[in-house]
Amino acid sequence: MDRIRAVRDLRAIVAAKRDGRVLSEEDISSFVHAYANGELSDALAAAFLMASLLRGLDDGETLALTRAMVESGDTVAFDGLGRPTVDKHSTGGVADGVTLVFAPLAAALGLAVAKLSGRGLGHTGGTLDKLESIPGLRTDLSPDEVRRQVEGVGCAVAAQSPTLVPADGALYALRDATATVPSVPLIAASVMSKKLAVETDLILLDVKAGSGAFMKTSADARELADACLRLAAGWGRDASAAVTDMSQPLGDAVGNALDLAEAVDVLRGGSGGRLRELTLRFAARALERATGADPDEALARATAVLDRGDALERFRAMVDAQGGDARVVDDPEGVLPRAPVREPLLADRTGVVAAYAAEDVGHAAVVLGAGRLRKGDRIDPAVGIVVRPKIGDRLEAGEPIGEVHARDADAAAEAARRVLAAIDVTDGPVEPPPLVHAWL
Amino acid sequence: MDRIRAVRDLRAIVAAKRDGRVLSEEDISSFVHAYANGELSDALAAAFLMASLLRGLDDGETLALTRAMVESGDTVAFDGLGRPTVDKHSTGGVADGVTLVFAPLAAALGLAVAKLSGRGLGHTGGTLDKLESIPGLRTDLSPDEVRRQVEGVGCAVAAQSPTLVPADGALYALRDATATVPSVPLIAASVMSKKLAVETDLILLDVKAGSGAFMKTSADARELADACLRLAAGWGRDASAAVTDMSQPLGDAVGNALDLAEAVDVLRGGSGGRLRELTLRFAARALERATGADPDEALARATAVLDRGDALERFRAMVDAQGGDARVVDDPEGVLPRAPVREPLLADRTGVVAAYAAEDVGHAAVVLGAGRLRKGDRIDPAVGIVVRPKIGDRLEAGEPIGEVHARDADAAAEAARRVLAAIDVTDGPVEPPPLVHAWL
Repeated sequence: MDRIRAVRDLRAIVAAKRDGRVLSEEDISSFVHAYANGELSDALAAAFLMASLLRGLDDGETLALTRAMVESGDTVAFDGLGRPTVDKHSTGGVADGVTLVFAPLAAALGLAVAKLSGRGLGHTGGTLDKLESIPGLRTDLSPDEVRRQVEGVGCAVAAQSPTLVPADGALYALRDATATVPSVPLIAASVMSKKLAVETDLILLDVKAGSGAFMKTSADARELADACLRLAAGWGRDASAAVTDMSQPLGDAVGNALDLAEAVDVLRGGSGGRLRELTLRFAARALERATGADPDEALARATAVLDRGDALERFRAMVDAQGGDARVVDDPEGVLPRAPVREPLLADRTGVVAAYAAEDVGHAAVVLGAGRLRKGDRIDPAVGIVVRPKIGDRLEAGEPIGEVHARDADAAAEAARRVLAAIDVTDGPVEPPPLVHAWL
Repeated sequence: MDRIRAVRDLRAIVAAKRDGRVLSEEDISSFVHAYANGELSDALAAAFLMASLLRGLDDGETLALTRAMVESGDTVAFDGLGRPTVDKHSTGGVADGVTLVFAPLAAALGLAVAKLSGRGLGHTGGTLDKLESIPGLRTDLSPDEVRRQVEGVGCAVAAQSPTLVPADGALYALRDATATVPSVPLIAASVMSKKLAVETDLILLDVKAGSGAFMKTSADARELADACLRLAAGWGRDASAAVTDMSQPLGDAVGNALDLAEAVDVLRGGSGGRLRELTLRFAARALERATGADPDEALARATAVLDRGDALERFRAMVDAQGGDARVVDDPEGVLPRAPVREPLLADRTGVVAAYAAEDVGHAAVVLGAGRLRKGDRIDPAVGIVVRPKIGDRLEAGEPIGEVHARDADAAAEAARRVLAAIDVTDGPVEPPPLVHAWL
């Protein structure tokens, strides 16, 4: 009878949202807990998600949803480290290796970065997958291992435990299957539940906007960033967000070993460009928020620390602590897996890069085997794409603009075709897009 | 790969409806067929239903949905009978025995009624369940048996085959489980798919409005009736609908054998009242539409045919043809099952009946065992409630106003308590509600 009553109540909650009513924290909590405990059908949960998407969830409801998701699993606290702890999250983009550079750089700046990460999915690469292209490197660290490593090295990047916000994993899979992904409150609750389940002093969010991001416009990305920040505020946590450009690949490399090699190159001072620039801005922002440093001074310090190789040494120590072959920092080419086929990518037109279908570049890498179409798919760490031109750059037909790293020549040709088709070329000069649309 | 493509397409259809786009007939057809074939998850179907409920379906989409549901199963044609065929459907009410009287009355008027019916659910009784309270009576007739019986007797009431609109059964169960029932297009498609799958010359719809109906207001009922008529017109079928009062039980009896006995009483000319009146109006409407008779003349003919016992004889022949004990028409009390406990229902207040919570009266009968809370529940044919006062009638505290027929005294007391609580009594005179709000 109680079971029947409970099911009736759950249906009444869905009916209330369907009819546009605001749900109580208790309603949302009992709904999420029932789902997490398997007491709620996927069908009723899907109806709830669609009703929430179309009717909306207000800030109180979104916070209650986030809280219920966090309560569905364990939480992790990284306190008493004697240094401000920082978490950084990107909503996902193409050639987005910021975390790989940010974590050791922030550590070198005296902060502590304990980054618990999910796997990459679709056209966006995952930090874990990139790191694991280093032979021997483990990401399945226990919370104790993470803590000890952060105490010693200053940073750790580990796989999120399945007991961290399990309701989010289940609900996200259901949203993906039921066309209920594109809802700002649902996305914000999903992103922030995983950040709020890990106690840190500061949360930094990189909300991507553009053709390679989930949010295609800066306005949509800003709405998501605002929703995430309101959740942090509602929870009593310090957070800052940037809406950043994803109208083109951020770095030049799209793959796992290739992305990793590019990050090492930035840490070694080899490459400049937008990846380095954005990482420095996030590191400076972290320093500002955590220590009260002046923005210009913070940026200068971050730049100096990166340039003198301190971040590289932290990266080496992190790789070593996680069981990876630390020689990767000195000889990435020698240590990282290499694809059997390497073909140069040649520009097929002359003109100025006007726009990128950046998501298609990500998909081209997925076609090569670098990414997952579905959760659980195996990935190939060696394959991927290097494509150097950025919006505003001039190309000459036939000029080498990158490389394709593939298992075979057919896959290489298909990926090259897709990448070239993703680049829009015009005659006139084109203004490069801003790197950061807004800091919030 | 085709399977993956198909699943993607189905999700794209849900996304299109979610975003407020109008779906093509092909989209809707492939969606419904995939669901009927088990190729579509309940979760994605539930998301579609919620999106359809909140975004709406236009007439073209509703017709496409109805067509796809009809195409999910067999259709039945009752043509070449030499008489106009009529189907009649009620959206469900309390003490609504109209079909039991209408079918033999229309037959006696020279029409043919082949009524394929579903089971009762919730607070509304089902015609099949009422008929089956007659010992021996079968409702599992094959289409051929129905046809032969209609040729011979003029009317048959049989259980809808599971192969008639199977998608509707599946979708209705899912809607019930996912809070997606209250959508006019979805209800209209559900109602009309079952009518359109049976080829008849005329469809009569009794759309109930009020506290004992699904549609609580006359305006909502009218919206549903209009949607049903537009579907019939889109299909090229003749149909007429009445919005009728369900602000109180239509007849006096709520149960199965009790409802049946009341219908027999109307057929024998024993009781007047709203049940007789509404049945006559529907019979006259059928005559009008099928034969072009003048409305007043049609009503006069229907009344005469009922009063001289022709409809009773058709009922006797129908019961006999379906294997039932036809003596029920002469001695209902002796033939029908009787409950062991019969308690008089005594008015607990003095005053005028102002309103009925008619659904609660239906639920009181369900508590006794007369109805189903869930599809497949067994019902008790003998139990039920007789409650005679109508809105506007004067009651004296302690006066007998009906009876409760129950398995035991506790159940009887609980049902009596519920029925009395469902009757709202005031001091002043109260105008009875109209029987028919509108003919459409």
